Parts: sequence; structure tokens; C-alpha cells
Amino acid sequence: MSYFEHHVFFCCNQRPEDEACCAKHGAQELQAYAKSRIKALGLDGAGKIRINKAGCLGRCDEGPVLVVYPEGVWYTFIDQEDIDEIIDSHLVGGKIVERLKLA
Amino acid sequence: MSYFEHHVFFCCNQRPEDEACCAKHGAQELQAYAKSRIKALGLDGAGKIRINKAGCLGRCDEGPVLVVYPEGVWYTFIDQEDIDEIIDSHLVGGKIVERLKLA
Repeated sequence: MSYFEHHVFFCCNQRPEDEACCAKHGAQELQAYAKSRIKALGLDGAGKIRINKAGCLGRCDEGPVLVVYPEGVWYTFIDQEDIDEIIDSHLVGGKIVERLKLA
Repeated sequence: MSYFEHHVFFCCNQRPEDEACCAKHGAQELQAYAKSRIKALGLDGAGKIRINKAGCLGRCDEGPVLVVYPEGVWYTFIDQEDIDEIIDSHLVGGKIVERLKLA
């Protein structure tokens, strides 16, 4: 069994001004939002859900991106509404959000 | 199939001076070392291996720690020799390094 049921990594890398980069699309703020929402739901901790910051995940052109392990599902997102849908549908409900999923 | 065959996250979080923290045990330097070694082996990139920095992975007392996904195997490590063993045995050879593995 995985140490965390879902381990989520937000790309929070910051690139130079003229390059594509998740951090320019609010990734850090939305990571903080997701973390606080999971905590408020009482779903953080071992055996449950962890929301992490990560360095560059290597998919800059498709960003902002996050990845959910161990299932290895990648998402892009725009705003809190998208993050809420990923939390409610996937992390809590176990149903992948197809409209935000990356190949 | 996973976007990366192995996606490795090193806890590189920095805590206040009087608290346990992976960064105080050379995590950042060893992450950089692992990344450069995987690149030198020609094993970095989509479909292959990615070595990432991450924020606090929540296992401070067992640190320094890293986690390999999608398999969800956690390791602790001391030096380059340990990192080489994780790379050669697990990431390249597919054989978990039991002596460094965390429960």
C-alpha cells in the first residue's frame, strides 16, 4: 500500500520572465489553496492525501500542471474551480476529471 | 502507462535551525547529483526517469527521504553511494534496495 492514498505534486517552478512556467499561472497560490482545503476536509496525513510543491515537472508547454500518484494522472488547471473539481471528483470520489486530464 | 517510468521526488524542504529537516542532510546536493547522473546515463525525459525537488514530504523524522513513483517506494539515504545504489539497482535494474527502504 502507498504511504499516501493520493500524493499530489504541483509544479511550482519559476522560470525567467520570457519562458513558459507554471508559477506564472498561479500554481503556487493554487497549491496552497488545495493544501488548506484538504486539511479543512480532515483528509491530510499518512494513509490519506498529501499536497506537495515540486520543482519543474518537465511539461512546461502544457502548464500549469500537477500529477497525482500513485495512479500517475496528470492535470492542467486554471482556477480554484478546477482544483475543487480535482479534489472532489478524483481525490475524494475516485473519479478522474477527464476534461482537465493530460495524456 | 505512466508519463515517466520512474518519477523521483527528493524532499528538499528547509525548516528552522532547531527542527529536523532533509535539507540539513545534503538532500539538495544529492538531488542535483542524482539528476546529473540520470542525464549522463541518457535516462532523463518522457517515458524514462525524472528526478525532482519537492517541498516537505511529511516524513521529517525519517529523513532525508525520497519517494519513487508510480511504485510508491520510499527511501532514506546518507551519501552518493546510497544514491548510486538506488539509481543502479532500482531505477535502472528494477530491484528495490531493501536496506534503504522505508516502511
